[in-house]
Amino acid sequence: MSIQAPHNTLLIPGPIEFDDAVLQSMSHYAHVAPGFVKVFGETLTLTRKLFQSTDPTAQPFIISGSGTLGWDLVSSNLIERGENALVLNTGYFGDSFGQCLETYGANVTHLTTPVGQRPSLQEVEQALKQKPYKLITLTHVDTSTGVLSDVKGVAQLVRRVSPETLVIVDGVCSVGSEEIAFDEWDLDAVVTASQKAIGCPPGLSIVMTSGRAIKVSQNRKTPASSYYASIAKWLPIMVNYENNKPSYFATPPTQLVHALHTTLTQITADVPGRFAQHTQVSDKVKAAVADLGLKQVAASPDSQAHGMTAIYLPEGLTPPDVLPGLLKRGVIFAAGLHKDIATKYIRFGHMGVSVTDPKRNDIDHAIASLKEALAEAKQAKGL
Amino acid sequence: MSIQAPHNTLLIPGPIEFDDAVLQSMSHYAHVAPGFVKVFGETLTLTRKLFQSTDPTAQPFIISGSGTLGWDLVSSNLIERGENALVLNTGYFGDSFGQCLETYGANVTHLTTPVGQRPSLQEVEQALKQKPYKLITLTHVDTSTGVLSDVKGVAQLVRRVSPETLVIVDGVCSVGSEEIAFDEWDLDAVVTASQKAIGCPPGLSIVMTSGRAIKVSQNRKTPASSYYASIAKWLPIMVNYENNKPSYFATPPTQLVHALHTTLTQITADVPGRFAQHTQVSDKVKAAVADLGLKQVAASPDSQAHGMTAIYLPEGLTPPDVLPGLLKRGVIFAAGLHKDIATKYIRFGHMGVSVTDPKRNDIDHAIASLKEALAEAKQAKGL
Repeated sequence: MSIQAPHNTLLIPGPIEFDDAVLQSMSHYAHVAPGFVKVFGETLTLTRKLFQSTDPTAQPFIISGSGTLGWDLVSSNLIERGENALVLNTGYFGDSFGQCLETYGANVTHLTTPVGQRPSLQEVEQALKQKPYKLITLTHVDTSTGVLSDVKGVAQLVRRVSPETLVIVDGVCSVGSEEIAFDEWDLDAVVTASQKAIGCPPGLSIVMTSGRAIKVSQNRKTPASSYYASIAKWLPIMVNYENNKPSYFATPPTQLVHALHTTLTQITADVPGRFAQHTQVSDKVKAAVADLGLKQVAASPDSQAHGMTAIYLPEGLTPPDVLPGLLKRGVIFAAGLHKDIATKYIRFGHMGVSVTDPKRNDIDHAIASLKEALAEAKQAKGL
Repeated sequence: MSIQAPHNTLLIPGPIEFDDAVLQSMSHYAHVAPGFVKVFGETLTLTRKLFQSTDPTAQPFIISGSGTLGWDLVSSNLIERGENALVLNTGYFGDSFGQCLETYGANVTHLTTPVGQRPSLQEVEQALKQKPYKLITLTHVDTSTGVLSDVKGVAQLVRRVSPETLVIVDGVCSVGSEEIAFDEWDLDAVVTASQKAIGCPPGLSIVMTSGRAIKVSQNRKTPASSYYASIAKWLPIMVNYENNKPSYFATPPTQLVHALHTTLTQITADVPGRFAQHTQVSDKVKAAVADLGLKQVAASPDSQAHGMTAIYLPEGLTPPDVLPGLLKRGVIFAAGLHKDIATKYIRFGHMGVSVTDPKRNDIDHAIASLKEALAEAKQAKGL
């Protein structure tokens, strides 16, 4: 029996369904005391495991805030006013990351692509050769389109063509459902949040940084341009907690950290197995979508995310024609988000316990419900 | 029967003991859906009530983050590079607010005082006449010393001497235990957090702003210098939620907002009554401290906080001599924090349910335990 009240199944690209044990941690009594110091320290160590990182110069940060705060941490510490940033823009979140970089004074170049595509490695190489870039950002999975970036390929390319350029990954919609080998791929920062594939309630900004990135933040010509998102302020706090010493810059969100500890303990029991499970379920969803004669927003199979699927509706239908039929069956999908195509598609999130616990039957029920809801909607419209 | 596991009573100047109903809200199923939109909207309206504000141009902000984030919101939106800020510095938190303001380019003047004191209104008036200040900050209750500022008096003075100067109150350790009449006192921003006298778990930055402050943020000569703490980004989100419309800038911390809704519903049932209760219990604590022959760090009765008491230990004793004796009796006080006197005093927090629910007997038990622990410590030291 679940501790959760009966509810419709939340299958949007985050927030997602919660595991009972994770939610229970939220009402756990916890405060800034020896017990919490240990939990926070272990949570940082588990974060390294999540990123398959063993390099001691790499550094995780867990800070009270939304995922968005991670953009500020990157933009105010790892690049200085007047330096160049290249944004591989695959949708809504590329636009926003670019705005954040500009707020802190970066010169931003967007490498844009048609909706549903990602720039080719050739295009990225050409762009990198045009000016010296302090950093390059890419959205691992764009929540608005379901487009998956080739993080490993881009990182290899950057090291070959422009080795000093920092590789920054927005992993808000990928960490926990897409493979990331932080050390092996030689990444400099992955910015994520607690509430998507990690399966924790929202309210934690999680950033993994390389030793190279930390050095860049320490060798700035000008002071870091944010106070709350300052790496210099947070670094000693994270180092101390991981060494089991309490330390103060701002009050840590104790209950959320406790919930993160619970979910990371579950996830890191088998990291490769988790990615395999997400791939398998994603393949099943994508096959069902094809069976229904529908197309994905992410055009090419190698650029399709494994934790979500953005699905074009049949000609003549919009999200309000289909989403109520899903809700009637207890299933919540998300409407479109990308401004150019918002009325033409819906988004199906398949991450976390809905994927890893087949007993829930969330995915099969959602696929069956989608089929029925589409048929109903077509009939209603006389299509 | 409490849902909470047996634990020592947390009587530090925040975080504090939790009400069962508030903690239960944390494991409530909640997400970005119509139910949550209503809860968030109501929580914003309850925040107005907490500040006794009815002016429709005033605007509350509730953002995922620690209380510290509120300093960034003030420093990056309400003052521009090269403008002057006057910090009434009554301890550790004045130093830090000053650093935050400087990070965003303000010229900061600290009006400092000896430990345990606050600047007189004459001193503030003199300082205000020396240059044009864009804003003045004061820490309502300095958590490091228990010094209470005269917010109403300073605000009146500013309006008389330098009417354009924004009055910014750091209310992290005061909101919910000290009277604040936001409109009547004509304040421009009160920055606070969820985890102290408000009695919610940590992870929410709460900022109340005046119409005047919002206008200043909108009439800047230069763009706001933070992205995540941008008033321009958050304002439409808060306005929309209060009008029952969902809106996106960053994912809201749904569970924490739910817990805040629960505690604000309790608090705002009788705001003046809550302040009266805190004053009454504070008077009892201070009388007991005097009976024990001990002095407070906050020198003068009219500058002593009502939600905490910073107590000088008898000559020859340090916090490690006394705190274990309290813990043995199930009571947690905090050690000293102000660097000049850290080894000489302890801090007793009396806020929230420990004050408003006399059946808990938290305060009387703490007073009795302090008496016993002091006697034991003196005996052990042969004093």
